[in-house]
Amino acid sequence: MPQANDQAQTQHHLRTLSDAVDTGALQSIRHLLKSLSSPDIAHLIESSPPRQRAVLWRLLDSEREGNVLQELGDDVQAQFLKGMDTDELIALTDGLEPDDIADILQQLPDRIIQEVLLAMDTQDRQRVEKILPYQEDTAGGLMNTDNISVRADITLDVVLRYLRRLPELPEIFDTIFVVNRNDRFLGQLSISKLLSSDPAMTVREIMATDIEPILASVPDTEVANLFERHDWVSSPVINEDGELLGRITIDDVVDVIRDDADHSLLSMAGLDEDSDTFATVRNTFPQRALWLGLNLLTALFSANVIGLFEQTIEKVVALAVLMPIVASMGGVAGNQTLTIIIRGMALGQIGKSNTYWLFSRELGVAICNGLLWASCAALVASLWFNDIIIGAIIASAMIINLMTAATAGVLIPVALRAMKIDPALAGTMALTTITDAVGFFSFLGLATVFLT
Amino acid sequence: MPQANDQAQTQHHLRTLSDAVDTGALQSIRHLLKSLSSPDIAHLIESSPPRQRAVLWRLLDSEREGNVLQELGDDVQAQFLKGMDTDELIALTDGLEPDDIADILQQLPDRIIQEVLLAMDTQDRQRVEKILPYQEDTAGGLMNTDNISVRADITLDVVLRYLRRLPELPEIFDTIFVVNRNDRFLGQLSISKLLSSDPAMTVREIMATDIEPILASVPDTEVANLFERHDWVSSPVINEDGELLGRITIDDVVDVIRDDADHSLLSMAGLDEDSDTFATVRNTFPQRALWLGLNLLTALFSANVIGLFEQTIEKVVALAVLMPIVASMGGVAGNQTLTIIIRGMALGQIGKSNTYWLFSRELGVAICNGLLWASCAALVASLWFNDIIIGAIIASAMIINLMTAATAGVLIPVALRAMKIDPALAGTMALTTITDAVGFFSFLGLATVFLT
Repeated sequence: MPQANDQAQTQHHLRTLSDAVDTGALQSIRHLLKSLSSPDIAHLIESSPPRQRAVLWRLLDSEREGNVLQELGDDVQAQFLKGMDTDELIALTDGLEPDDIADILQQLPDRIIQEVLLAMDTQDRQRVEKILPYQEDTAGGLMNTDNISVRADITLDVVLRYLRRLPELPEIFDTIFVVNRNDRFLGQLSISKLLSSDPAMTVREIMATDIEPILASVPDTEVANLFERHDWVSSPVINEDGELLGRITIDDVVDVIRDDADHSLLSMAGLDEDSDTFATVRNTFPQRALWLGLNLLTALFSANVIGLFEQTIEKVVALAVLMPIVASMGGVAGNQTLTIIIRGMALGQIGKSNTYWLFSRELGVAICNGLLWASCAALVASLWFNDIIIGAIIASAMIINLMTAATAGVLIPVALRAMKIDPALAGTMALTTITDAVGFFSFLGLATVFLT
Repeated sequence: MPQANDQAQTQHHLRTLSDAVDTGALQSIRHLLKSLSSPDIAHLIESSPPRQRAVLWRLLDSEREGNVLQELGDDVQAQFLKGMDTDELIALTDGLEPDDIADILQQLPDRIIQEVLLAMDTQDRQRVEKILPYQEDTAGGLMNTDNISVRADITLDVVLRYLRRLPELPEIFDTIFVVNRNDRFLGQLSISKLLSSDPAMTVREIMATDIEPILASVPDTEVANLFERHDWVSSPVINEDGELLGRITIDDVVDVIRDDADHSLLSMAGLDEDSDTFATVRNTFPQRALWLGLNLLTALFSANVIGLFEQTIEKVVALAVLMPIVASMGGVAGNQTLTIIIRGMALGQIGKSNTYWLFSRELGVAICNGLLWASCAALVASLWFNDIIIGAIIASAMIINLMTAATAGVLIPVALRAMKIDPALAGTMALTTITDAVGFFSFLGLATVFLT
């Protein structure tokens, strides 16, 4: 059957599951699990509340646990890993790819890592140990060691016979790497070329040498940008000496791309991209509490700014009615600028040479919007409170705050990046603090001067 | 040279470019362009302000224009397409893949599409015309027609000889599709299998038949989820009759994944994911103005809510000082809930069966956070204004507003999705309107009852 509607199918499975858990009809869950592939089961687990999730995991065949586990997000993975003893972990890693085993091991205490490694056969252990030193978020951490490499001076016919003799070829298999006797990377031979060329030719004659292999220490975000830009399916990974270490395949890069994009979205709301959508209240609360606590501090700061003008407000209550408008417009406009800059940074578009241009553009837009909406706000305010001066004040304050918002929206992420602080995480709150404070101060300050 | 630092390299190119444009040293730009691949040039163009961008495009060899153009985002692409006549467009499409040509054509007026199609050779035209009817955001719009298909009853040796006779194999080439005499999809043969099996075997013996081909009408977001979940490199696309139409490759899916993720991020700030980071003030202004105008309306609505309580504020000015705190906490907490739900929806995790659980979880977190931060706010407010009742009022209002925020954060996206409105686009503003209004109303309302 064609994949008519994948989302609808997931929702159907979720309902089946939820009904079965409620009625205790475990047989129908077993049946469901048998009919699904490991990635689909992982998706179902990630889309399930804790109670259904526990039942799914319990009923899953133990041979499939490893395959399902490596498809799960870090947070959900950790939940299941926590409950396992060493023997279960050893059984779990059986049949997984070295990079997936390394990802799982990196979440465990050192003592357990050693025990699991000792239980593996020598070849597998060596492969995993080759990857383990690299951080998960570098090219080295993304790479696998299932690459096939040949020498340059053999014929394609020899390559074809060599491939046929191998017990297994990698699942994603688009290129063969060419190395010299010291394992230094020389170039690559695409499978398309191999299949379409005369078997009597040598590898050297048809290999591509304009490939730039990726250094193991390159951050995963940059790996993702390279793959995205060059439409790669796989890429060789080398160390500082040019020695071939392994290869990165697109399936792992896709996860990085998704995570990177999610990172900006979630960080801007003070959330973590690894976090589980269906985490319990207990697991969700601490992080949310921290963010709200920080926001309370910044809100108290803004309240303090308002407090400076208590006497002015006492005389003209209309100011209390109108002041949130100025703050809100600044916050929304600044957030637009901030989002553009943060996304441009994630895509590697923004640096010293073009920041000034972006700043001028944002300021230009702010002035246009300021003139447009400040006039509207002035009109409404003047009519509402029957006072032209109050209209002029809200208009001036709004223009000031929109220009502040544009400036802060560009400068905050640039400054945070220079300080090596994640602009997506800290940017939103810093921005709102500034637009609130400047909004209240300019509006109430102008009112103090011109109205009282 | 290995790709030491891709972002730093881009920034270096941008500086070279910007200096060369300033000093008129066009030769060095020509030199730079020659040294870069088409995707790198596209990235440089997308990272450049308009003036540098125009120079880059002008100095680009005309044979490379097509390849660079198809790498650009829709918005930037449209800017260059606007300035071209039909002959230039015809020259441009030469050598591009059918799906990329279709993407470009879909941006042009019907009359010009016909002219460009007529200028193409018959085979190319037929390929493009096969794709053109499908919307860019469906499986049909993503697919290419460069797939290679064979019958099930031939031997692998015949397949290998057939491949060698073809003038060219696709760049991304991981599977061969198997069809019957009516072109109906039967299964697929992976290149790995082809290379590792005995050439005397038939295709039928080793082809995989558990593949679910994608229907041409499936939305691209769902295609992306399927690729992501199953680690596919390519996938067959069929019509309702099961006939093989073409195939989708991972490079095009990666763009969808990036766009999808960007969509949530940018829409939540009222921005468009196709928009150009370096758009001019004139191009940026209208969309930003619309969003700020909508925000002004909602801010005026909140001001009206405050206006109901002018007399209360007149009596107790402290209320004006404290009221933005209640609104701000609700806005920030609600935005967290909203972001979680919108992202869960984008990942296909959220449906009827688990919404209620998520709602309870969010409400639980809101109550915990409410109790924690309302107490803190109460303490600060009581000490600041030396009035315990004002502390009790701000605490109660904050708990009410955090619970409202959790409810709105779940219900708004669910309701918007049911009404077929994009939750990411409309959600933020709807949410802030509610948390502002409820925040001001509960705080000032309670104060009116208990303080005056």
